[in-house]
Amino acid sequence: MRPDEEPRSDDLLLASYVDADRDRIVANLFDWLRIPSISAQPAHAPDVRRSAELTVELMRECGLEHVTLLETDGGAPCVYGDHLHAGPEAPSALVYGHHDVQPVDPLDEWTSPPFEPVIVDGECRARGAIDDKGQVLYELEAVRGLLRDGRLPVNVKFVVEGEEEVGSPHFEALLRRERDRLASDVVVVSDTSMWALDVPSTCVGMRGLVAFDVEIRSAKADLHSGVYGGSVPNSAHHVARLVSALHDADGRVTLPGFYDDVRPLTDAEQASVAQLPFRDADWMAEAGVRRLEGETGRSTLERVWSRPTCDVVGIGVGYTGDGIKTIVPGRGGFKATFRLVPDQQPEKVAASFRTWLAAMLPDGVDARVTPKGAVAPARTPIEHPAVGALTRAIARVWRTSPLFTREGGSGPEEALGRVLDAPVLFLGVGLPGDRIHAPNERMVMSQFWKGLLAAGELWRELGAMAH
Amino acid sequence: MRPDEEPRSDDLLLASYVDADRDRIVANLFDWLRIPSISAQPAHAPDVRRSAELTVELMRECGLEHVTLLETDGGAPCVYGDHLHAGPEAPSALVYGHHDVQPVDPLDEWTSPPFEPVIVDGECRARGAIDDKGQVLYELEAVRGLLRDGRLPVNVKFVVEGEEEVGSPHFEALLRRERDRLASDVVVVSDTSMWALDVPSTCVGMRGLVAFDVEIRSAKADLHSGVYGGSVPNSAHHVARLVSALHDADGRVTLPGFYDDVRPLTDAEQASVAQLPFRDADWMAEAGVRRLEGETGRSTLERVWSRPTCDVVGIGVGYTGDGIKTIVPGRGGFKATFRLVPDQQPEKVAASFRTWLAAMLPDGVDARVTPKGAVAPARTPIEHPAVGALTRAIARVWRTSPLFTREGGSGPEEALGRVLDAPVLFLGVGLPGDRIHAPNERMVMSQFWKGLLAAGELWRELGAMAH
Repeated sequence: MRPDEEPRSDDLLLASYVDADRDRIVANLFDWLRIPSISAQPAHAPDVRRSAELTVELMRECGLEHVTLLETDGGAPCVYGDHLHAGPEAPSALVYGHHDVQPVDPLDEWTSPPFEPVIVDGECRARGAIDDKGQVLYELEAVRGLLRDGRLPVNVKFVVEGEEEVGSPHFEALLRRERDRLASDVVVVSDTSMWALDVPSTCVGMRGLVAFDVEIRSAKADLHSGVYGGSVPNSAHHVARLVSALHDADGRVTLPGFYDDVRPLTDAEQASVAQLPFRDADWMAEAGVRRLEGETGRSTLERVWSRPTCDVVGIGVGYTGDGIKTIVPGRGGFKATFRLVPDQQPEKVAASFRTWLAAMLPDGVDARVTPKGAVAPARTPIEHPAVGALTRAIARVWRTSPLFTREGGSGPEEALGRVLDAPVLFLGVGLPGDRIHAPNERMVMSQFWKGLLAAGELWRELGAMAH
Repeated sequence: MRPDEEPRSDDLLLASYVDADRDRIVANLFDWLRIPSISAQPAHAPDVRRSAELTVELMRECGLEHVTLLETDGGAPCVYGDHLHAGPEAPSALVYGHHDVQPVDPLDEWTSPPFEPVIVDGECRARGAIDDKGQVLYELEAVRGLLRDGRLPVNVKFVVEGEEEVGSPHFEALLRRERDRLASDVVVVSDTSMWALDVPSTCVGMRGLVAFDVEIRSAKADLHSGVYGGSVPNSAHHVARLVSALHDADGRVTLPGFYDDVRPLTDAEQASVAQLPFRDADWMAEAGVRRLEGETGRSTLERVWSRPTCDVVGIGVGYTGDGIKTIVPGRGGFKATFRLVPDQQPEKVAASFRTWLAAMLPDGVDARVTPKGAVAPARTPIEHPAVGALTRAIARVWRTSPLFTREGGSGPEEALGRVLDAPVLFLGVGLPGDRIHAPNERMVMSQFWKGLLAAGELWRELGAMAH
C-alpha cells in the first residue's frame, strides 16, 4: 500500500465491532483505571495484586486460554494468556504491556481524581490511561473482536507485567525461565507513542542506558573553610571537575572509545528521519528551553536518536540548605547516565567509565562507583517483513504511512527481543501531550479506537504473511 | 621581656585569686553552661534570654557597673557593663565575647550530655565551654580579681552578644548606634584559639568572607533524558562547568582582578609564620585528608592565612535520592564563598563575581545570584603598642612568647575594629582539639586558668603603657 492510498474505514476488520461494543469497552477500561496499581508504593501492593486479578478476568473474557499468573522471584506476578488455534503454519506473536502505574503526586495538580476516570473533550483522564492499561486493553479487545467472527489468523500470547514502572526488576529472569512458553515469531510492544495525532509513527529503536552513582571522598569530614580553605581538596570542586570533563568543547563524551561501536543510520532510516515534520523551534518550545546543545555538527534528531549521550541527572555535595555554611565539603556525589545506541554495549561503556574516572582522580581523592542499571540499545530492523506488516496496518487506520522514530525508553523491550530472539514491533498510540508520569495523564480516545483497529489489521497482515 | 625569660607564677597578679576562688569560679561556669542558649533554634529563644540574664548577674557580681541589656532591632540583646574608674589618663578597653552556643546535633555522639558540664581529665566538657562562655568568664573573673585588690589600671567595658553563632545579624547596627558608649582605645576579642598547648599564639588577622547563592535555570522543568538528552542544556553540566571554572590549573581563582588588592605579608609577619612548628603531614592528619591542594608555589600557611581563596560549599542539582531518575535537570545551584585577605574589599569581589558569571553563561541559561553575607578582612597591626602589651601578658603566663597566627573567622571582629576605629587584640585560649561546633566540645581547664591570669596581665601591661 502506498502512503497516498486512502483506506476506507469500512475496510477495517474491526470497524463494526468497535461501533457495537464501544460502551462496554469503555466500561472495562474504567474498571481497570479505578484500581490504583502503583508499583512504586508498597502500600499499594494489594492494588497491584487486584489489578493483576482483573487482568486475568479481562483475558478470559476476551477469549484467551491458559490464563495464569506467572510468579516472579519476590516481585509482582505477570499475567499470561494465549490463543493458539491459528494452526502451526500461522505466525505467533507475543504482546507485551503492563498494568502497574506511576505514583500520582502532586495530587493537587490533577483536575480530576487520578483513579476516577472521566472522558472530557475526547480524552480519557486517569493515571494509567495511556501508560499502559489503555494500550493493553485495545490489544485484548482486538483479539476478542476477531475471535467473535473466528478471524484471528495468528497464534497470540500476552504477557502483562506489574513492575514496569519500577524498572521491571524481575522481568528478564522470568523471560528466561518462561522462554519456551513465551517463544514467538514477533514481539508486539504496546506501550509507546506516535509523533503527532496526524503523523502516525512507529518506534524502530530504543536507546539503551547505563547509569552510575559516583561518590567522592576528599576528607574524613567537612572542614571549616576559614581554617582549611585553600589548602585541602574540596569535594565540590572535584565533583564539578569530573562532571565538567565528561564532555569536550564539541559536546562529545570523553570516555575513551565511547563512539567506537556506534553504527551509522541506514539510508532507509535516514530517509525516514528526514521526512519527519521537525523544527528546532518546536522542539525548544515543547521542551521549555531557550537554547539547544549537543554534539557539534549533528541535527537535533540525530542527537537524540542516533547518537549516544551522557546526562548527569543529579549532583549533591556539601551544604544545600538556606544560607551558607562555611565548610570545605569532604564528600559528595553525582549520578551519571549514558544513553546508548546500536551497537554499543553497556558493559564496555561501564568499563570505560571506570577507567576514565580512575585516570581523572588524583591520589588522595577516592571514588566509589555503584552501577545503577544497564539496558542495551534495541533496534528493530526496518527491512524485516513484520515491520512491513505493522506499517501497512497503521497506514490503513491512520490513512497515511507511519514514520520511523526512536525512543529513549529503557524498559524491558530490549530484553524481550534478545531473550526471545524475535523482532520487536511497537504499536503504540500515545501522543506527546499525554503527560505520562505527570498529573492529568490522558489518553486521546480516537487514538485508543485506532489502536484497537490497528491491532486487528496487524493480525490480518501478519496472518497473510504466512500464506 | 625576651622569649627565654621564664616568669615565675607568683609574679602573676591574679595567682592567689585563682587559688582562693577556684571552686566558686567553676561553679559559676557550670551554672552558665547548663543553659542551652542555642541561638539558631527558635525553641531555645527563652534559654538565650535566660543566659543573657545570667550574664547580667555575673557582670554585677564581678563589680561591673551600668550593667544593662542593649536591645537589638528584632534580635537577641547584647549584655553591656563597664568599670570606668581608672582615671582619664588610663587607657580604655572593650572586651567582646558571646554567650550563645551552637546546636548540639548529633546528640548521640556526645559522651556526656551537652548541657550537663563535667570536668574529666582536666577538660570541661559541655556545649559552650570554650565557644564562648568559658572565654568570657575568665575575662569577667579577672576584673573581679583585680577589683578585689583595687588594682584595675584600665577602664574596661564588656559587650557580650547572643547571636554570634547565627552570624551576628544585628551586631554591626548596634555597634553603630552605641558607638559612643562602646568607644575604647583597644578591643579585646575573647573567642579564639592558640596554636597548641605549649605554643601560645595570638591572632593578628582574620580572612574576610563574601558568599553567594547561585541558582541556574536551563529549562522550565526537568526533562526526560531518553527523549531530550543530548539536545537540550543540562543544569548539572552548566553548574559543574561554572564551579570547575572558578579555579585555573594553578589553583588560582579566576575572577578578574581577584588578586589585585592583596597586600603581601610584612617581614615581621613572615618571620613569625616561619617560626611556627608547622608540618604539612600534621596539617593533613588534623584535617583528615590525604593530599593538599591550593595555589601553586605557596606554602600551606600562606594559602590559608595570607592568600584569598574560593570554596564552593555546596552543589545541588537534579535528583540525588536513591537509584536513578532519567532526567535532564532543568535547574540547580551552588553556593560559592570567597575568603578575603587585606586589602581586598567584599564589594569589589562581589562585582567581579557577577561580571565573571555573566560572561560564563551562554544565552538561554539563566542565573540568579543572591548575596549571602560579606565581611571585610581584618588585620591587627603587630607593630601597635597594644599588641606588644598582649604579647608580654601571654608570654608571662605561658612562659614563652606567643606566635602570630591568622584565623578564618568571619565574625564581628572586623566590624568592631572598623566601627570603633581601634586595634583588635585576640586573647583566646582555645586549642585545635576543642571540637567547637561539634559533639563533645571541651575546654582544657589549664588554658582557662591561664586565660584568667593572662587577662590580668594584659590589664597590667595596658595600664603601664599610659604612664
